[in-house]
Amino acid sequence: MTAKNAFYAQSGGVTAVINASACGVIETARKHKDRIANVYAGRNGIIGALTEELIDTGLESDADIAALRHTPSGGFGSCRYKLKSLEANKREYERLIEVFKAHDIGYFFYNGGGDSADTCFKVSQLSETMGYPVQAIHVPKTVDNDLPITDNCPGFGSVAKYIAVSTLEASFDVRSMAATSTKIFVIEVMGRHAGWIAAAGGLVEDNDIPVLVLFPEVEFDKDKFLAAVKSKVEQHGFCTIVVSEGCHWPDGKFLAEQGTRDAFGHAQLGGAAPVVANMIKEAHGYKFHWAVADYLQRAARHLASASDVEQAYALGQAAVQKALEGKNSIMPTVVRESSNPYKWSIGEASLSEVANVEKMMPTEFISADGFGITPACKDYLYPLIRGEAYPPYNNNGMPNYVTLKLASVAKKLAEFKL
Amino acid sequence: MTAKNAFYAQSGGVTAVINASACGVIETARKHKDRIANVYAGRNGIIGALTEELIDTGLESDADIAALRHTPSGGFGSCRYKLKSLEANKREYERLIEVFKAHDIGYFFYNGGGDSADTCFKVSQLSETMGYPVQAIHVPKTVDNDLPITDNCPGFGSVAKYIAVSTLEASFDVRSMAATSTKIFVIEVMGRHAGWIAAAGGLVEDNDIPVLVLFPEVEFDKDKFLAAVKSKVEQHGFCTIVVSEGCHWPDGKFLAEQGTRDAFGHAQLGGAAPVVANMIKEAHGYKFHWAVADYLQRAARHLASASDVEQAYALGQAAVQKALEGKNSIMPTVVRESSNPYKWSIGEASLSEVANVEKMMPTEFISADGFGITPACKDYLYPLIRGEAYPPYNNNGMPNYVTLKLASVAKKLAEFKL
Repeated sequence: MTAKNAFYAQSGGVTAVINASACGVIETARKHKDRIANVYAGRNGIIGALTEELIDTGLESDADIAALRHTPSGGFGSCRYKLKSLEANKREYERLIEVFKAHDIGYFFYNGGGDSADTCFKVSQLSETMGYPVQAIHVPKTVDNDLPITDNCPGFGSVAKYIAVSTLEASFDVRSMAATSTKIFVIEVMGRHAGWIAAAGGLVEDNDIPVLVLFPEVEFDKDKFLAAVKSKVEQHGFCTIVVSEGCHWPDGKFLAEQGTRDAFGHAQLGGAAPVVANMIKEAHGYKFHWAVADYLQRAARHLASASDVEQAYALGQAAVQKALEGKNSIMPTVVRESSNPYKWSIGEASLSEVANVEKMMPTEFISADGFGITPACKDYLYPLIRGEAYPPYNNNGMPNYVTLKLASVAKKLAEFKL
Repeated sequence: MTAKNAFYAQSGGVTAVINASACGVIETARKHKDRIANVYAGRNGIIGALTEELIDTGLESDADIAALRHTPSGGFGSCRYKLKSLEANKREYERLIEVFKAHDIGYFFYNGGGDSADTCFKVSQLSETMGYPVQAIHVPKTVDNDLPITDNCPGFGSVAKYIAVSTLEASFDVRSMAATSTKIFVIEVMGRHAGWIAAAGGLVEDNDIPVLVLFPEVEFDKDKFLAAVKSKVEQHGFCTIVVSEGCHWPDGKFLAEQGTRDAFGHAQLGGAAPVVANMIKEAHGYKFHWAVADYLQRAARHLASASDVEQAYALGQAAVQKALEGKNSIMPTVVRESSNPYKWSIGEASLSEVANVEKMMPTEFISADGFGITPACKDYLYPLIRGEAYPPYNNNGMPNYVTLKLASVAKKLAEFKL
């Protein structure tokens, strides 16, 4: 059997551990040179395949590839570029196959969320139709944790750990100050459609922190919320609030869209956190502080979950192993064997079942009052944030994150307009 | 010599390492039971002394006191309560002395910033006048790093490390996305009067990150700033901006005060970061993300600097040792012997020279264009963020931060109205 090249690309919002999956793909491929000659990576994601801007990972040292395991962000660049349906834009899919053909690429590893699973699925279908065989394997990644079938998605565990720990630390801070000063701390977290990340903030309840979580799954009820805040402050002296960026009013309008205008009439500038904080101040007069974690949360490799890093790597590794076993149009998954003790294994899902399916928080994970998480949710979350996987630091006190060479592969085709 | 009790209190905004100083004070006192019978802590800071709400630290186990070293926040509670001048409110100072007398307190360890240094100084003066001897020692603490004489202040090094690392991580993230999506990342940091924390964000320049820092020391020049952003994006494809909450226009108005009003006419909700981000969007159309770290930065014990933890502990320890040497009205300081290699020792400053003096960033630490830091500034900062001092974690993946018993000492005096 002749060795073919592999193509690897990172898709959508990056995470603290997507590079660990890249590391798993490349290191495993390097162990099978007889089958996988080289791994080409898309410069800035799938756009790199369309424009034939391929990165020669063969020119990266073993040490630099190993360092991807502890480096956050997308080492090869990512993009937010969703290929349209096959019918609407067959031209792009055909271009992908042409580029794969020109560079003797027989394996397509696509590292992303729901949209990229869909693209991956279509590439596998079209490659059959076009008579150029490509094994398309999707490597799951998303901080939103919303892919189906897999128990969880790499990237989520590390965000969850960061939010749980940061919420705990800030809650300890506000507890220190509450007697005479700040009584309310609001932290805004990612997750526009699903409350998985917000749920992680709810874990601090186990450390005796009075906490209220505002999920996108629960319509915001201002009166009920303000009463709950008052009750917590009267009982504990302070209250922490974790608000998902996706928290919304019954009419679907996000809390962040408050209709605020600046002096020039431009739309408001803030997020959900300042809206919630000011709402509390107005109702109860409590002094507040608020934080918006934004990219800090998904990039926080310094506090990655060891479970998450291990699984991100294992799924990249499994993608290559499954390709070598002849598998096509699949996604390796995390299968939870048990929560206590935490045991997991690698499974596999057909891309036809993954594409365009969103996994929401189960209702039984949200407490009856809508402001907290249940014991079942905690059992689910804790194993995912378990263990610390610190990056190495240099003598200046900064982490040794790698920046790759990213040398281009020579182009062979005519230019393609996106 | 009869053993006296000691009084210890935490003052002002808490930090990731103020408890490490508490640990240094209490552990050192416990080694000298012949001289220091017990350490009473003020419940919620100096207010605890005024209201005679004293915490009996003697009832805390050695293990719990040791755990303070890795626990962020103020373990005994802190407060924002500035005693007025001796003339304006002699009553409060006299009350302090009465409480000290009632509980046989001969040592006053006050852990805080500029205001508490001033209080500490006045207590030492008044105790002489009133004929009840109290040795008043100030233990420096402030994330703002604005105390004079000492090379740096415990609390600052850990915030600086957190901001430097987080800014690096988020910059790697935006670099991954910049080709097709986000090109601007803005992080807002603490420091209303001094740009020390913002300066730490400027360190990412050494990791080839295009970064602009907006200091409180430099009047904001919108045109110059927007031109600098454009130049960075055209050259590098993206740009990171670190904005101090204290950044202001030439007329002194903070950037955060944009005159924004919500639908009800209430003042704006956001911070400086969204203002800067929207300003760039309006001028250049670049997609942005922004974060406000707020309490997360000063509570982030999970990423504390080892230098900082060590110095926080050493200063608490030195405070007790100096008290036992008979010193009064002083503050132990960090003396930098050399930066490369980093060597430091403990010195001492008279409180008369510390009280009410603010240390600003030296002009030679800010680059000529006003948007960055100089090599001299980097030489100053790196040793302070050097080394990692991780807290222990439990099997659930959460840090083992301690919550103390905080048992009260029986009151002996009549109630005192604040």
